[in-house]
Amino acid sequence: MWKITEETFNPEKQHHKETIFTIGNGYLSTRGAFEEGYPGGSRATFIHGVFDDVPVVFTELANAPDWLPIHVYLNGERFSLATGNIEHYERQLDLRSGVLRRSVRWCSSAGDGATLVFERFASLADEHLLCIRCQVTPEFEGAVEIRAGLNGNMDNEGFAHWDWMGQGEREGVYYLHNRTRATEIDLGLAMRLISTSAPSQSDYWDAQNVPTLKLSFSAKRGETITLVKFVGIATSRDTSNPVEMAVEHARLAQSWESALEAHQRAWGREWERCDVQIEGDDEAQIAIRFNLFQLLIAAPRHDNRINIGAKTLSGFGYSGHSFWDTEIFMLPLFIYTAPEIARNLLNYRYGRLPAARQKAQTNGFDGAQFAWESADTGEEVTPTWVPHYADRTKLIRIWTGDIEIHISSDIAYSAHRYWEATGDDSWFIEQGAELVLDTARFWASRAEWNDGAKHYEFNDVIGPDEYHDHVDNNFYTNYMAKWNLQTALEVLDWLKANAPAKANELTQRLGLSRERLAKWKEVLTRIYLPTRPDGLIEQFEGYFERRAVDLAALEPRDISAQVLFGIEGCNETQVLKQPDVLMLQYLLRKDFTDEQIQINYDYYTARTDHTYGSSLGPSIQAIMACDVGKPDEAYEHFIRAARADLRDVRGNAGDGIHGASAGGTWQAIVFGFGGLRVTPQGWSTAPRLPRHWKRLAFRFLYRGELQVVDLKNS
Amino acid sequence: MWKITEETFNPEKQHHKETIFTIGNGYLSTRGAFEEGYPGGSRATFIHGVFDDVPVVFTELANAPDWLPIHVYLNGERFSLATGNIEHYERQLDLRSGVLRRSVRWCSSAGDGATLVFERFASLADEHLLCIRCQVTPEFEGAVEIRAGLNGNMDNEGFAHWDWMGQGEREGVYYLHNRTRATEIDLGLAMRLISTSAPSQSDYWDAQNVPTLKLSFSAKRGETITLVKFVGIATSRDTSNPVEMAVEHARLAQSWESALEAHQRAWGREWERCDVQIEGDDEAQIAIRFNLFQLLIAAPRHDNRINIGAKTLSGFGYSGHSFWDTEIFMLPLFIYTAPEIARNLLNYRYGRLPAARQKAQTNGFDGAQFAWESADTGEEVTPTWVPHYADRTKLIRIWTGDIEIHISSDIAYSAHRYWEATGDDSWFIEQGAELVLDTARFWASRAEWNDGAKHYEFNDVIGPDEYHDHVDNNFYTNYMAKWNLQTALEVLDWLKANAPAKANELTQRLGLSRERLAKWKEVLTRIYLPTRPDGLIEQFEGYFERRAVDLAALEPRDISAQVLFGIEGCNETQVLKQPDVLMLQYLLRKDFTDEQIQINYDYYTARTDHTYGSSLGPSIQAIMACDVGKPDEAYEHFIRAARADLRDVRGNAGDGIHGASAGGTWQAIVFGFGGLRVTPQGWSTAPRLPRHWKRLAFRFLYRGELQVVDLKNS
Repeated sequence: MWKITEETFNPEKQHHKETIFTIGNGYLSTRGAFEEGYPGGSRATFIHGVFDDVPVVFTELANAPDWLPIHVYLNGERFSLATGNIEHYERQLDLRSGVLRRSVRWCSSAGDGATLVFERFASLADEHLLCIRCQVTPEFEGAVEIRAGLNGNMDNEGFAHWDWMGQGEREGVYYLHNRTRATEIDLGLAMRLISTSAPSQSDYWDAQNVPTLKLSFSAKRGETITLVKFVGIATSRDTSNPVEMAVEHARLAQSWESALEAHQRAWGREWERCDVQIEGDDEAQIAIRFNLFQLLIAAPRHDNRINIGAKTLSGFGYSGHSFWDTEIFMLPLFIYTAPEIARNLLNYRYGRLPAARQKAQTNGFDGAQFAWESADTGEEVTPTWVPHYADRTKLIRIWTGDIEIHISSDIAYSAHRYWEATGDDSWFIEQGAELVLDTARFWASRAEWNDGAKHYEFNDVIGPDEYHDHVDNNFYTNYMAKWNLQTALEVLDWLKANAPAKANELTQRLGLSRERLAKWKEVLTRIYLPTRPDGLIEQFEGYFERRAVDLAALEPRDISAQVLFGIEGCNETQVLKQPDVLMLQYLLRKDFTDEQIQINYDYYTARTDHTYGSSLGPSIQAIMACDVGKPDEAYEHFIRAARADLRDVRGNAGDGIHGASAGGTWQAIVFGFGGLRVTPQGWSTAPRLPRHWKRLAFRFLYRGELQVVDLKNS
Repeated sequence: MWKITEETFNPEKQHHKETIFTIGNGYLSTRGAFEEGYPGGSRATFIHGVFDDVPVVFTELANAPDWLPIHVYLNGERFSLATGNIEHYERQLDLRSGVLRRSVRWCSSAGDGATLVFERFASLADEHLLCIRCQVTPEFEGAVEIRAGLNGNMDNEGFAHWDWMGQGEREGVYYLHNRTRATEIDLGLAMRLISTSAPSQSDYWDAQNVPTLKLSFSAKRGETITLVKFVGIATSRDTSNPVEMAVEHARLAQSWESALEAHQRAWGREWERCDVQIEGDDEAQIAIRFNLFQLLIAAPRHDNRINIGAKTLSGFGYSGHSFWDTEIFMLPLFIYTAPEIARNLLNYRYGRLPAARQKAQTNGFDGAQFAWESADTGEEVTPTWVPHYADRTKLIRIWTGDIEIHISSDIAYSAHRYWEATGDDSWFIEQGAELVLDTARFWASRAEWNDGAKHYEFNDVIGPDEYHDHVDNNFYTNYMAKWNLQTALEVLDWLKANAPAKANELTQRLGLSRERLAKWKEVLTRIYLPTRPDGLIEQFEGYFERRAVDLAALEPRDISAQVLFGIEGCNETQVLKQPDVLMLQYLLRKDFTDEQIQINYDYYTARTDHTYGSSLGPSIQAIMACDVGKPDEAYEHFIRAARADLRDVRGNAGDGIHGASAGGTWQAIVFGFGGLRVTPQGWSTAPRLPRHWKRLAFRFLYRGELQVVDLKNS
């Protein structure tokens, strides 16, 4: 159960399938567009950190110069799935090895048939190496021509980011040099071809920005022509001479077989530490591996200046910007299976502390306020205004960058969780503690004293449930702020005991005077956190008075509640995009009793837009359903998350992988169905497998040791 | 005095000079970028009517696939002004023949020298034919290689508009086929090369979207290699098969000499009807011809579905949108020298009546309300919000598209003026009358009855002086509305007498009932038009109470008053971007006495930001200065307008030619210094030449007959 297979090509599903068949290696990803192109295709390669300026959303990952182009001509007729006859078609992504393979038997309009096989991978063993193999087996005697090139003329759905800087040849390697227009990042792309059969003629076309090699073959019926295209890639983020580095990596690749073998070995190590096995449910089995694969190819192994975007590196959606999706949804996988990746991601946040401090200061607060949407610098890059979907003279104000403030505690929480799970004291002392302490400073300054009610409030915010904006005292936000302040005090005490020099330095640098700490204590003990006597929590002040809606009565539907009721209309109802209270209870489970979990689960589950609300919701919903002993109900939510992209259940998978959903799927399995609990004292499971699952096995690291969990349904 | 010459190349002035050296033929224009390119260049070809969608400004002229590329290699080293040594450089635009010529003596870094001469023109005899001649005279024996291509990878300052559709060869002509992404306009570009010396080798590079021919020559010292590149061009706006049409035009071009001769003959006819001669002032002489040239190459000779943009076809500024600039500033030149062009431009407006009616209806009015910014459909395409220049989270609301309503009467005025000048009754009956009548309907419905003051008002508008927005009773707007209503009544009477069937049809179709006409009469007699007893007119209600500023005391300055005081601050002063009252008095001169002209001239001249206000102002100011008998003062304003682009006095000529200023320059000469008055009864001049001018001669058509005016200074 390792292969995602497509047996017919449907142009209408083209963008969805480009997303599904994305390959990558943690340095870049390339959507599953065809080597030869297809009309209306949305081909793209995104390289971590290669952002460039753009109107409205400020910055976006620049669609990189294209390394894929291979054009095959059969007796002069250009191979394309848009013409001729497709006699056989199969596209297959092998998740175990990260190799995408396409096999086509095609007949030109003139009647010349051939079988064409394209295989590609982005080497996980050498992240600056990309490989394609093209095999053509003609069924005729005549001319076969293969043109392999690099193409610098790429754009982001109409926005061009690259200037051509030059191109040329060095020792049989053809290179292209481009530069992003505003951020001035240089990119070198270099190509070397190896063909098994000797071409009758070989030409180099030095056409500007499209260096192309043309190989002509005298084809013999049934004799396969094999061409291997090695592409080296590097940017000025990696080296001062990216062209040279790209040329080197293309030059040093030995053979398809040896490059593939190194790549497969690297993938073997990946799966060794994180594979999940499910017996009795083939769909769940392939879906979890697919979701893991998508996260693994987006995970930075050697770079701590970048983060994973909400749509990973697999599409244009959200421009490559990172949200809390990383910390809360994707990071746990890495914390428990690949802590060095988790550390890279957290160090990205650590490196963005100056920008977070700047944001806090601009808004009149202390400490570090992290951007809701974050890219290379960590400045806030949430669009403030976006075009109205219907009226072109109007704009819609996006408020999340201004008031969806919970991301600062989410980041602190994740730094702390990483520490707790790994015991990586040295990282926590050097980086993690500061994340917790400086976000605490922010919360203390952001808290508003209500002199009438005698408590601290956080007003005019947006919680995780974005159907309701400009709300006061969102319980999730308030509680996480309290957690952040409380944890900061504990962390400082721990530092004083275990790393007094660092404690001193931070006390000085962050101004953690006795008065400030006293203020923190005062704030955290008096943050407004109302809970009904029966344990029911009000998501935000006044939520209980909003209009109730019988969501079940609206089924089936194919639009979200927000579209159904309108942005304003939805705001007035109790319908949730995702349930904040359950999210909070999941993150801080031990703070709540089973009874509190149960009553909130029952209340909010009925009020959540599970089908078309947030794609972040279903996986957490599945975990909480397990918690209240409903594994079959949990399964419904789980499989909705697991299918999100494979089945394109929201119709927008073409924009890229739902990274949070992918990460949530893993959490639902491990923490939900597996019931894994990890504490500094040890770990335990509490299996609550769906009825039809025969077996669930997964792996994780506990304090650096690989743990294998193997659960069988009884 | 026909040549604009540049003797050194300054990369910092690159964009300005690209604008200056724009060539064109009324079908398209191409900026003066180098054939081989230059870093940071802003190369562009704009084809009339080839708009495509874009954010913020809705639609823009799509920078067309590039027909210029010619790359020369001397012994393998690529010729570029950014490398090697420039030993001689001259670029020259011959305004008489519309040929741009560049001569460079260049030495490669390896020491290989050559003289390279590039000449280009867009044929005025065949508007689908573009020609370049490249001559290379090497000073060495060795290899000279010339690569000539077409390049579909163009963008509009980062925004890509074109999809590649295909390319190929037919009978020695190489073509490229592209399509705009949103508007789906097909473009065919086809290239044929002729070289005098036989190349030792000739290769075709079929690289995607960059079809390129490479010719290799064995160079002999002192022996010139000549290459002619004919490019055919057509779009689906011209024909159903633009590729075929482009190929035909490239194929049929005979030789450089014959194509050039036909082109020169066509230019001869242009100058025959509109040349202006000035003796005693070389700068004015070359400047007027330059301004005429820029208008002539933007003027549609065979297309009445397009208009001239505010920046002609010469730059990215204003996206190719048309404003009142066409009717009030550029159109008079065509009315008096090329009425068939004027008719094309007016027919564009006639064809946009449905969109104007839609705009009026959307705003709750009757009749036709023309868009402030107009492109292909005539819908309003003024941006509503643009990014704030300093704060990236903010937007600025642009109000001109909502409330700068005077354009509707400006269009009616110009239709009427065309008729008056040409006596073209049949056009006026079929098209012009409807423009006047339907705009009158708009004005009558837009007028607001003030029951206290017992008059009609037009409140919350912007007049030509855009330093003041949201003003009430702008005198220009109110008076032109009155003129429009009054003229509509006269036109209907004339139609009833001279074209009763048309009068009937329009009465039915536009609902011109007796009641409606009575309403028009009532409105026009009671429009609020206060004038002081001494003849001074208040530009808008409350203008006299705004803060007075001593503009002279602020000189010298290099920023506009609006930048100096801020948008809000400037609004509170009396400083004008351009003087509405003088503009009005110019347009409707006979409605005002000499005393009224004088008092308003004196008052408003002192309050106008002549240097950095509107580029539309100086030419009209010059005319009115002549009117009050101050030709030397007039000259200062005139020369400011005449120099606007040549000397880049506002620093933004890189965005394109100031079309209104160019048209105003001609008006200043003819109606200002020449004092030409044309009435249905005949014409007269009242020369008021600047002291240093020895002679002024110009030409115009009177009722189809060429008139030659030759004035000598006494």
